[in-house]
Amino acid sequence: MATELLLYNTLTRTKESFAPLRSPHVGLYVCGPTVYGPPHLGHARPYITFDLLLRYLTLLDYKVRYVRNITDVGHLVDDADEGEDKIARRARLERVEPMELVQRYTLAFHRAMDQLGNLPPSIEPRASGHIPEQIEMIQTLIERGFAYEVNGSVYFDLESYRAHYPYGQLSGRVVDDLVAGAGNERRALASQSEKRKPEDFALWKKAEPEHIMRWNSPWGSGFPGWHIECSAMSAKYLDTPFDIHGGGMDLLFPHHESEIAQTTGCHGCAPAKTWIHNNMVTINGQKMGKSLGNFITLEDLFAGTHEGLSQAYDPMSIRFFVLQAQYRSTLDFSDAALSASSKGYKRWIQGLRALMSYEPAVFEATPGPNTTGPGGLLDPDVLDAKARAALNDDLNSPVLIATLYELLADFQELRNGKTQITPEAWNRLRQTVQTYVEDVLGFPLTTLTSEEDSGTLQALDAAMEVLMSLRQEAKASKDWALSDRIRDHLTHAGFKIMDDKEGSRWSR
Amino acid sequence: MATELLLYNTLTRTKESFAPLRSPHVGLYVCGPTVYGPPHLGHARPYITFDLLLRYLTLLDYKVRYVRNITDVGHLVDDADEGEDKIARRARLERVEPMELVQRYTLAFHRAMDQLGNLPPSIEPRASGHIPEQIEMIQTLIERGFAYEVNGSVYFDLESYRAHYPYGQLSGRVVDDLVAGAGNERRALASQSEKRKPEDFALWKKAEPEHIMRWNSPWGSGFPGWHIECSAMSAKYLDTPFDIHGGGMDLLFPHHESEIAQTTGCHGCAPAKTWIHNNMVTINGQKMGKSLGNFITLEDLFAGTHEGLSQAYDPMSIRFFVLQAQYRSTLDFSDAALSASSKGYKRWIQGLRALMSYEPAVFEATPGPNTTGPGGLLDPDVLDAKARAALNDDLNSPVLIATLYELLADFQELRNGKTQITPEAWNRLRQTVQTYVEDVLGFPLTTLTSEEDSGTLQALDAAMEVLMSLRQEAKASKDWALSDRIRDHLTHAGFKIMDDKEGSRWSR
Repeated sequence: MATELLLYNTLTRTKESFAPLRSPHVGLYVCGPTVYGPPHLGHARPYITFDLLLRYLTLLDYKVRYVRNITDVGHLVDDADEGEDKIARRARLERVEPMELVQRYTLAFHRAMDQLGNLPPSIEPRASGHIPEQIEMIQTLIERGFAYEVNGSVYFDLESYRAHYPYGQLSGRVVDDLVAGAGNERRALASQSEKRKPEDFALWKKAEPEHIMRWNSPWGSGFPGWHIECSAMSAKYLDTPFDIHGGGMDLLFPHHESEIAQTTGCHGCAPAKTWIHNNMVTINGQKMGKSLGNFITLEDLFAGTHEGLSQAYDPMSIRFFVLQAQYRSTLDFSDAALSASSKGYKRWIQGLRALMSYEPAVFEATPGPNTTGPGGLLDPDVLDAKARAALNDDLNSPVLIATLYELLADFQELRNGKTQITPEAWNRLRQTVQTYVEDVLGFPLTTLTSEEDSGTLQALDAAMEVLMSLRQEAKASKDWALSDRIRDHLTHAGFKIMDDKEGSRWSR
Repeated sequence: MATELLLYNTLTRTKESFAPLRSPHVGLYVCGPTVYGPPHLGHARPYITFDLLLRYLTLLDYKVRYVRNITDVGHLVDDADEGEDKIARRARLERVEPMELVQRYTLAFHRAMDQLGNLPPSIEPRASGHIPEQIEMIQTLIERGFAYEVNGSVYFDLESYRAHYPYGQLSGRVVDDLVAGAGNERRALASQSEKRKPEDFALWKKAEPEHIMRWNSPWGSGFPGWHIECSAMSAKYLDTPFDIHGGGMDLLFPHHESEIAQTTGCHGCAPAKTWIHNNMVTINGQKMGKSLGNFITLEDLFAGTHEGLSQAYDPMSIRFFVLQAQYRSTLDFSDAALSASSKGYKRWIQGLRALMSYEPAVFEATPGPNTTGPGGLLDPDVLDAKARAALNDDLNSPVLIATLYELLADFQELRNGKTQITPEAWNRLRQTVQTYVEDVLGFPLTTLTSEEDSGTLQALDAAMEVLMSLRQEAKASKDWALSDRIRDHLTHAGFKIMDDKEGSRWSR
């Protein structure tokens, strides 16, 4: 059982024991969204993953500075440093000023993150808000011979960099492969115009006359390349090197590899010690893409307004779906899988809520041979150890969720009077449940929209408890007619009653 | 009755007919908060005022670009350009990086604005995100002889400016008064160090070694003065001059007067045609201030957690309280006034909600002598004309609110069958109410809790229905033991069961 936090470091391709560089402080940088469109399914997984990491590090008493940027300039349509700026293009299509677009989609992103239960980052820097920092970094790279200017644009000189530092360690890509690779004709063609080598990448782009987002620089009016913002902003708000750099696996190359080259070229060391990448999501087995017709925005998902969806999905059930897979495994969204997971979530959270509001009728009166508690997961120390072991194993959230399912089975035993628990152990157990379910996994155990609503839920639980007891009593006195009538009435009223040897459970 | 929109222009001290410079586009710039502390009562009034303006201009079919900044650097504790940066000082006290503080209080500000029903601005630029723009503007001012550098700081040269342009038109202040004024000893003393004249103001401040927020500039490492950000950002996102510049009356001098001087010195014309200032709020007749012990945050107000408050105040009742005064009149917050207004709001909005869901039983069947409708405010054209007249008169929201109160009296007549209305007029009337109550004043007419919550209530009703049926069946078959057991179980679970000759009813 892991007693220390192991995290898979993409850079070393091993699970490593996590030790902060400047404990108890932890610097965490995660690549944020390019805000040129509504937040979509592809945004759900990375930010839930790093939210879990943030929450667990906080539980471990680390003081985390979580920096997540907003890319509002410089992300080009074509990764090969040609084509329009994504935001400028969308702004032109929507006939608004680019910063109006940025505002609209930043607000939409924040709303979606709130709905998914993700905590806000400590600092949320914007690329357009850090132009001087980016320009200064580019100047340093030119001075050190790792960048060159051509016609008002500046490119990173990969050949010169490779003469001093290794390149490609993170992604495992070799430059020769890149150039010779089959998919790179376009890349090679497009870059013939200015770059010395096809593998070089843009640090600063000259602005064409129609380009609205532009700033003066030593190389004329232009705008920064996409990669340089993360190097400049992580260096500004976190020490170099900092502890953890995160992002989706799609950012591994060229974005993160370029970040490493830029920061190393400028500061002499790589930006981060540990690189964590969540695996990608697919939709019905396919990559998500606008051209594929399977592009689902989070708003559509939460409202059920997409032709591929049979229903609306509560944001918390999406969070549950994401956390039911370990972040490095693949995750396929489909309406059927979401629907099943959504049902599972409701059972799970309702069970846990019932546990939280349960007051054991029979407490162990006097310490006896059974003072160590009821055993199993009802022992708060056992639950805590199992939960930690799961999270310590590279944030294995599905194991933690399954452990909490098992706890519910043990809880049923307690409810049925088969085990007992001391008041002290019961209180600690509830605290432990709250810690892992609410604080770490981020699922609310109380859904108090208002006092009245919470009263309604409790009243429903109480009414159903009465019905379950009546039915239990009927069975005990072999009054099968009454027992069946209660079940039939409830089924007719829209409840589902499940009998097993432990007793009866219900769901809506 | 005003048929065109009249707005009081502080610059000309008259109500002027509003005509956009580039109709249908309207440029609106409003000074945003300095995010160094939690949002408080002083933030409620200006942003509700300009939200009303934004909403009414939108109703009038103007396309408004609403720019509201976030001041995250440069606002000094002492208005006389000395003392610490407000955010840097607070960050030092709280031992966090200044941008962490900015993030925390920006999020709190956004949350409070949402709660108050204020729409987000179209663009929300940050001072720290526009350093190059501010530096370039300062360079232009130096080139034109309106600014000078001393020891790495740059000051605006008011004497040189006044030789070319008038100064003080907005605030009515005369420079000689300023210098000779009784309250200015401290100002004069503090500025002796560097400024040529006491009335000059800072454009760029040299950063002391311990200052974290700093940028390189032609004058060394430093940070911008408070006033220059608004000149730079309004010029960037709105044409110069733009239509309306807004803010609280406390910003009139020195902030807005300085903005006019900076923009005029740089662009040759003042930033805005119309200047709108909301009057200040007082608390129990006093100016609000931390030192006075009457400082109330919006969070405290909404939660009722302040010793001066007898209860929590719903954000919408605060909005109502603010809009019950015309924005240029004084507004005194007191627990008694808020409590009265809160009761008034509930009656008003409940009356309007009742109107919206009412279906008149007796419609006028055939056109007769009464075809013009029921008369009074139930005539949608009359209501619309009165509402517009109120808003056209310099946003006279209290008159609009009172008009809607009068409508409720006329509605009572309809309810009592004393008047009739055609279906067509009734539908138009409801649309008109929705337009002014929801779209313009910003009060929600529908308060839907989530689907899940309503599902819980339905499930509770269904479960209780099952229990009531079981009990009825037990009684019918004279199984008094079961009937009593059901009642006892329910009583124990917190329900109240009332038997009468109609059967049984329950309540919580």
